[in-house]
Amino acid sequence: MSVARRTGRRPGGPDTKGEILAAARVEFAERAYDGASVRGIAARAGVDPALVHHYFGTKEQLFLAAMEIPFTPSEVAAQIMSGPQPGTGERAVRTFLAIWADPVKRAPFLALLRSAMTHPGAAALLRQFARRAMLARVVARLDVPDRELRAEAAVSHLLGMALMRYVVKIEPLASASEDELVSLVGPVIQRYFDP
Amino acid sequence: MSVARRTGRRPGGPDTKGEILAAARVEFAERAYDGASVRGIAARAGVDPALVHHYFGTKEQLFLAAMEIPFTPSEVAAQIMSGPQPGTGERAVRTFLAIWADPVKRAPFLALLRSAMTHPGAAALLRQFARRAMLARVVARLDVPDRELRAEAAVSHLLGMALMRYVVKIEPLASASEDELVSLVGPVIQRYFDP
Repeated sequence: MSVARRTGRRPGGPDTKGEILAAARVEFAERAYDGASVRGIAARAGVDPALVHHYFGTKEQLFLAAMEIPFTPSEVAAQIMSGPQPGTGERAVRTFLAIWADPVKRAPFLALLRSAMTHPGAAALLRQFARRAMLARVVARLDVPDRELRAEAAVSHLLGMALMRYVVKIEPLASASEDELVSLVGPVIQRYFDP
Repeated sequence: MSVARRTGRRPGGPDTKGEILAAARVEFAERAYDGASVRGIAARAGVDPALVHHYFGTKEQLFLAAMEIPFTPSEVAAQIMSGPQPGTGERAVRTFLAIWADPVKRAPFLALLRSAMTHPGAAALLRQFARRAMLARVVARLDVPDRELRAEAAVSHLLGMALMRYVVKIEPLASASEDELVSLVGPVIQRYFDP
């Protein structure tokens, strides 16, 4: 059936990309991040997996396109971790605030987190993506015991700070300058990265 | 009209409490926490304010009853802050985890936070209640500069930790023991409470 559908379709037609993205959203919603595959998404869309790779690259890149995440969290995580070790906490706070300050950038994460509060499938998608595409890069650069737990504790602080600043909008946190938050929260988060 | 309705009603009848709670939910949704009053809620329910006080006590207690929050956050906050100062961070983590581990206790906060992500009115309700009934007790006991900002930073870490543990359920954070988290996160949060 997949072959029959494939031959009836113009590869590269104007709607093919949209159909792949729609298929990706269904696949990720049903199978979460780890269970989804480019092959499975291609089959759902009735196209060749090579076409999916051609248009969107890796599974991670396809996920970002499907969820309309306009940056690459794994690259951001790698950048934060690649600078001088003692400034890791401050870089993490500054980078996280810059992303969350942009409504377009925070919207997909808020939507996923909101769904995760009522749908276990959305929670699985969020945690698997967070582990594969963000935390893995952080953990790989940490030279401390319990590095996974520490990385997650650090990210949990960043997440809570972003929610209270941009969603709950509690004062004075909502109006504090980025510099103020970097110098207050950065050294606290740094504790998780120090041996 | 309020008097007419009042006289037509049996005070203390079986549905009066329910009507007061329903009126409270409308008043809090429309006017948030600071704008809501026991008088306004009594007027909406068509009863005397004294009856509302008789049944539910203060505005804070009425809010807790209306939102089905089965504990008193302001008392919990006061307890956390009343122990020895160097153990404040650890007590905060232990108490927060105990509350969030209970689905009945976390549900109202999750519902409010979820609404806050899409409705500014719900965000206002959450932040005003958080400030009046929780943070005020923390701030009053802090002897540090920027104590409001520090208290909010501390609470933001607790909130993010709870969300990643109980909603996103990311591992190893989701399965870590309470003791493990108290000893990892407690001293980090303590930084906000130390001068």
